[in-house]
Amino acid sequence: MDCIFCQIRDGQIPSTRVYEDALTLAFMDINPVNEGHLLIISKTHAETIYDMSPPDLAAVSATAKKMAEAIRQALHSEGLNLYQANGAAASQVVPHFHLHLIPRWKGDGKGFDWKLVKGDPERIRVTAEKIRAQVPTERT
Amino acid sequence: MDCIFCQIRDGQIPSTRVYEDALTLAFMDINPVNEGHLLIISKTHAETIYDMSPPDLAAVSATAKKMAEAIRQALHSEGLNLYQANGAAASQVVPHFHLHLIPRWKGDGKGFDWKLVKGDPERIRVTAEKIRAQVPTERT
Repeated sequence: MDCIFCQIRDGQIPSTRVYEDALTLAFMDINPVNEGHLLIISKTHAETIYDMSPPDLAAVSATAKKMAEAIRQALHSEGLNLYQANGAAASQVVPHFHLHLIPRWKGDGKGFDWKLVKGDPERIRVTAEKIRAQVPTERT
Repeated sequence: MDCIFCQIRDGQIPSTRVYEDALTLAFMDINPVNEGHLLIISKTHAETIYDMSPPDLAAVSATAKKMAEAIRQALHSEGLNLYQANGAAASQVVPHFHLHLIPRWKGDGKGFDWKLVKGDPERIRVTAEKIRAQVPTERT
């Protein structure tokens, strides 16, 4: 297995770990966008959210809350962004599911702030219909 | 309660819903970054990840996987970004926990692609120590 994050999990590649439990591992991003930028991975190899088992995904979100609190306590951060990419088209670089936690401070300019541009309501409605049609157990 | 997303949940403000279950609601973002951009909220009001109950957070992640699959089927998207902001310093606009799902296509230029700049390893190590010291049940 050539996966970098599997090798980090197995200790074959060094990393700066901050937390670990049965299903997840948290370690520092070596290219931090901001102080305290860390990654949470599922220990089980899964490339994207599409491949993640529901228990692994729930475990990652539980670890995210735990690490969010630890980051805030440790760094007195004023905000936090969670970011996760699936697929090369979404700028995923390492093909092993990972969630970015990026601490934020007012005016740091490190966000993914995008301009709010109102979409065409009719086009949004049509797109929503397409998506709804693919939800197995729709209740709305 | 003046919260816009609570009012959307209660049907007091119109929205284009795509999915709903006991704990979560998914509806289209009115300012879509890309076709199919939607939001998942917890039905229980919670401002940020710090305020979210673990069951609500797990429910949002389960809905995220469900909606990721529906989006891919419906729109033949090539990638997907998950994004979530906590606090005004992190560019959170509506103070009710919400997770963005943003479908991506190759070369759409709609990502949050940041330049990878290697951080100072010593500084990262020191920051990691601070964070580790705040994790209640550390096992690493």
